[in-house]
Amino acid sequence: MMPLDDNAAIELTAFAWVPPFAQGYVRDLRIRWALEEVAAPYRVRLLDVRSKPAEYLAEQPFGQVPAYRDEEVQLFESGAILIHLGLRHSELLPAAHAERMRTIAWLIAGLNSIEPQVGELGSVDVFHKDEAWTGERRPQVVDSLRRRFGQLQSALGGAEWLTAGFSIADIVMVSVLRETRECGLLDEFPELSAYVARAEARPAFKQALSDQLAAFRAHEPQFQGEAA
Amino acid sequence: MMPLDDNAAIELTAFAWVPPFAQGYVRDLRIRWALEEVAAPYRVRLLDVRSKPAEYLAEQPFGQVPAYRDEEVQLFESGAILIHLGLRHSELLPAAHAERMRTIAWLIAGLNSIEPQVGELGSVDVFHKDEAWTGERRPQVVDSLRRRFGQLQSALGGAEWLTAGFSIADIVMVSVLRETRECGLLDEFPELSAYVARAEARPAFKQALSDQLAAFRAHEPQFQGEAA
Repeated sequence: MMPLDDNAAIELTAFAWVPPFAQGYVRDLRIRWALEEVAAPYRVRLLDVRSKPAEYLAEQPFGQVPAYRDEEVQLFESGAILIHLGLRHSELLPAAHAERMRTIAWLIAGLNSIEPQVGELGSVDVFHKDEAWTGERRPQVVDSLRRRFGQLQSALGGAEWLTAGFSIADIVMVSVLRETRECGLLDEFPELSAYVARAEARPAFKQALSDQLAAFRAHEPQFQGEAA
Repeated sequence: MMPLDDNAAIELTAFAWVPPFAQGYVRDLRIRWALEEVAAPYRVRLLDVRSKPAEYLAEQPFGQVPAYRDEEVQLFESGAILIHLGLRHSELLPAAHAERMRTIAWLIAGLNSIEPQVGELGSVDVFHKDEAWTGERRPQVVDSLRRRFGQLQSALGGAEWLTAGFSIADIVMVSVLRETRECGLLDEFPELSAYVARAEARPAFKQALSDQLAAFRAHEPQFQGEAA
């Protein structure tokens, strides 16, 4: 079954095109992935990253993607959308309260204890890479990430997933961790690398990634000037 | 009723003492506040911030506070603990699904769209304040926070709280915003300042703050060398 369906009740926003460094990492990927895991049909509303309509802020207060709607809710923040989907599909979030809450704790750990530091590394290596300050700052950011990754690897303890089965917590954590592969940091942590590879091998992840990338290919700027 | 109770089923961890800049801002405050709002008794297990027992990582994988336990769950991440408490107490999190999910979306916005940037400002102004790189970086961090605060103020739109009534989303957002008061940034946004002041005027907030600070006063290092 192909979850992409123009008549689906679930609608996501995504960007029609983003620069190459962001392709495959924009956060609608997390929601596409969850929807593929449960084969839930959805449609995508594409926005121009360079000129978002002012009224979009009513759906997403910070102008980001994804925003999400279905017959029941209108939401923003990928973490919240994943919790909503998890409450509908126990394959994504266990129904028993204690297990459910542990899973939500790991999802929030991904969003609040790992992603902010990964984001700082992105600032240093991508958004500000030729600026003088990054020379002094980068080793600090890397040290701090190394400490966190070490703690995360210990907590994972060679297990397959963060909790008893694959869940929305893994979707968040893997989405964040894979951003550090290119700079070599992830390779320093073999169990985390294997964890990310295990998740990326899931057919639902592959389909979600391929669908995000297909939209970018279809909306590639024709002239270099357009990509500025 | 005094929620602090040595025989309570709910146990939080907190630090016995932290340096002055962190006093009144450590994250157990968020949980104390929520528990005061619903008059739920709790006890506190104090940890030494300079020498946490290795086995504490089993409770809190990153060695932070708070960790939380009650007769039902063992949790970490203040956002997850707040969701758990919200599911028990509809005064903290509405029971209707759509409203509940909007509230969780705002809680996660606080944790993932506002707090990381506030944390970067803390890195610049507190943790690394005399380092050369911060001179070039600080204006970028402030500009980016100004844009986010402007969007947040627009979304709040003069309302009393982020959603229909006071909730765990406000506990998170206010806890994050108040960290920017001292540097003057919060004052640039009168509606956000008023929102923070409104929350800080709640008796539950005042009691929680006073209880966190009382523990620090009781465990003040006796000699300057001890505070290093």
